[in-house]
Amino acid sequence: MTLTAPGSVQADVHARGPVPPCPARGLVCRNCGATFGLIAEHACAECFGPLEVDYDPELMKAVTREQIEAGPQNIWRYAGLLPVGQDPADRVSLDPGLTPLVRADRLAAELGITGGLWVKDDSANPTHSFKDRVVSLAATAAKGLGYRKIAAASTGNLANSVAAHAARVGIPSFVFIPSDLEPGKVVQSAVYGQTLVAVDGSYDDVNRLTSELAETDEFEDTAFVNQNVRPYYAEGSKTMGYEIAEQLGWRIPAQVVIPMASGSLLTKVDKAFRELTAAGIVEATEWTIFGAQSAGCDPIATAFDNGWDVVKPVKPTGIAKSLNIGNPADGPYALDAIRRTGGSVGRVGDDAIVQGIRDLARTTGVFAETAGGVTVAVLRQLVEDGRLDPAKETVVLNTGRASRPSTRSSRSSAPPTASSRR
Amino acid sequence: MTLTAPGSVQADVHARGPVPPCPARGLVCRNCGATFGLIAEHACAECFGPLEVDYDPELMKAVTREQIEAGPQNIWRYAGLLPVGQDPADRVSLDPGLTPLVRADRLAAELGITGGLWVKDDSANPTHSFKDRVVSLAATAAKGLGYRKIAAASTGNLANSVAAHAARVGIPSFVFIPSDLEPGKVVQSAVYGQTLVAVDGSYDDVNRLTSELAETDEFEDTAFVNQNVRPYYAEGSKTMGYEIAEQLGWRIPAQVVIPMASGSLLTKVDKAFRELTAAGIVEATEWTIFGAQSAGCDPIATAFDNGWDVVKPVKPTGIAKSLNIGNPADGPYALDAIRRTGGSVGRVGDDAIVQGIRDLARTTGVFAETAGGVTVAVLRQLVEDGRLDPAKETVVLNTGRASRPSTRSSRSSAPPTASSRR
Ligand SMILES: Cc1ncc(COP(=O)(O)O)c(C=O)c1O
Ligand SMILES: Cc1ncc(COP(=O)(O)O)c(C=O)c1O
Ligand SMILES: [Zn+2]
Ligand SMILES: [Zn+2]
Repeated sequence: MTLTAPGSVQADVHARGPVPPCPARGLVCRNCGATFGLIAEHACAECFGPLEVDYDPELMKAVTREQIEAGPQNIWRYAGLLPVGQDPADRVSLDPGLTPLVRADRLAAELGITGGLWVKDDSANPTHSFKDRVVSLAATAAKGLGYRKIAAASTGNLANSVAAHAARVGIPSFVFIPSDLEPGKVVQSAVYGQTLVAVDGSYDDVNRLTSELAETDEFEDTAFVNQNVRPYYAEGSKTMGYEIAEQLGWRIPAQVVIPMASGSLLTKVDKAFRELTAAGIVEATEWTIFGAQSAGCDPIATAFDNGWDVVKPVKPTGIAKSLNIGNPADGPYALDAIRRTGGSVGRVGDDAIVQGIRDLARTTGVFAETAGGVTVAVLRQLVEDGRLDPAKETVVLNTGRASRPSTRSSRSSAPPTASSRR
Repeated sequence: MTLTAPGSVQADVHARGPVPPCPARGLVCRNCGATFGLIAEHACAECFGPLEVDYDPELMKAVTREQIEAGPQNIWRYAGLLPVGQDPADRVSLDPGLTPLVRADRLAAELGITGGLWVKDDSANPTHSFKDRVVSLAATAAKGLGYRKIAAASTGNLANSVAAHAARVGIPSFVFIPSDLEPGKVVQSAVYGQTLVAVDGSYDDVNRLTSELAETDEFEDTAFVNQNVRPYYAEGSKTMGYEIAEQLGWRIPAQVVIPMASGSLLTKVDKAFRELTAAGIVEATEWTIFGAQSAGCDPIATAFDNGWDVVKPVKPTGIAKSLNIGNPADGPYALDAIRRTGGSVGRVGDDAIVQGIRDLARTTGVFAETAGGVTVAVLRQLVEDGRLDPAKETVVLNTGRASRPSTRSSRSSAPPTASSRR
């Protein structure tokens, strides 16, 4: 254990219960089913398929509502359902989570939704996006696996969260971002005093660069949160699903609308609902998952429309920069969750996105970034064309707060050039 | 009751306890002691002194830790100690509060603080500043008093909170701001779709304008949150003090550093500590309150240095715009709390403020607006010149998140001109 977390202790209103056992028993390949120990790998040694955390169902069943409710007021109340961080002393975390679930009756009335509408407002997290959830899991896993530094390729929010986590615990971090992000997000990352590298290219270029860097000696002791520790990282998004169910009084909503970049968040909310059901923490009910993309970056929407199982990469454009991942790693799994639950995928253009931000702010007081605008605009579209049932209870995810938008409007990116660091 | 709050319901993790009685028995003049009913006035009819809520000490004593802990995860857990909002159905609120108390060991080490250092991070509130606390109280009182609209004069954060509250409940609001605020804050206020008036002048000019507007027929049914319902509004800041004590395990910290604009927040944190002690909710201990101002707007610091009981107004300059109130209404009461508890007031210039923002971000991952920079820079100053005891446990308040700063640096304001609305 080489990372220490002296500054990450947060006072909690409620006393913590006893430390639950760790329910993770290894990593499993989502493609071929091969199993591995709890190692620092995200791709299967057999088939290069993505690795996912595998849990002991008996240990998950042992978790009770009462245990969770007695836990801290953040994601760690679900430690008994997570792969790391059972012992508070092991956590490297800003202690995100338990963000408000806001009843949105005025928006529901405007859209004609009669079954009840809620906004899960994850802009209340420490760095104001849901990325604090995944980074807390990744950084905690990195500590346990012996890494000394953390790093990430990011569309902006992840950069802020990684830099802030590193600042809190006093370890070095490296965040790599496309150079055309919203200025507000870049300023925020810079202020944490951590290393920030703006790469002249798209997110997908940045991601390729960091994959190569991760293999170099210089970065041997660095955990790339969405690469070598990605299986642990990704599990952080489950907590959004757990919280929605708990905040509804331990009940799964009938319909959820979720923004997609890599598609990971969507798959993990679905996984959270399945786990809660399997563990008997909620009653078994049906739910439907809807995905939201911008028209400027819609590879998962296109695959859905065409009935494809795989996703064809695109070159992203448009203002929804935090969702601009043209080659989404979890696309096939997102498609699977959407199809299995009878959902659909919507795509909306820049004008609708801006209108979505306005509609949400005007009717709920929640001021979202473009990702929230995408989600609300897609909700409107899904109701209008009859894909979402207005008579059923619906939750939309606002995954980040607004940073001041760039004054440039949508534009196609210049051909990606080699990074300034290569 | 004319305001309704259909959209303000927030799911809560814990069941609510029974509705506590309202402990407020009237308003009392802080100057002459005259008493009034729970009316919509902020100035004494006898002497024009400021009115404050007066509580029944027996009802306060009836409140227990257990009752509070069983309440919702927001300011309303303290409803038994507040003047309004005991019944959830009466609340007009974004349900702010219970923001993180972050242990800041790395900052403590840099500053040489050995007694423990905490940051109360109020940027986690729904509109990202502590103003959501006061606006929730003001809007709830406004509803009870029969108003149909809400309004405010603001240095930026209050505007956002008022507009967001109005958006959530679907009532009209009017916010008046100086025209030279940070662009990010203005954008945020505008997006709620409420009326935003940029006044060509300082905050103090804006404040005078709204005082006059409040007397007109056009605004007869409008509650000006920091004017005609100010006594209720101001009590919202007490909740920061309650939370700090609760999050420390029902214990009052030895030292607290608080940013000052009108000086109200500082007086209310002190009041919260006194109330908790008097009600037997915490053990009686000593505490010391320190105030923080920017050198560009330091009227309370100057009064403190000169031993004055009254505050001489100044014309504000400098980057700490949210604190730029040159004629602070609660200055004398802030001075009283600081002197009574053996505290002091620090003032810091723009460069130190920027450094304060950096220091906090770099060591804790908390990205503050200028008010947080002022507070952290003053903390450094107080330690360096020996006014704050580094061996005692200390809490600093971060009252708002960063919005993208204006690229202009500190500049003296042009002579205030008449408002565009007059
Ligand atoms: C604000 C915001 N929302 C949603 C997403 C989508 O997350 P995922 O990549 O898991 O689909 C991202 C990812 O970058 C994001 O920044
Ligand atoms: C961010 C922030 N901090 C602190 C204050 C100071 O509050 P008070 O006027 O109660 O002294 C303000 C007031 O506008 C503020 O906006
Ligand atoms: Zn495999
Ligand atoms: Zn009087």
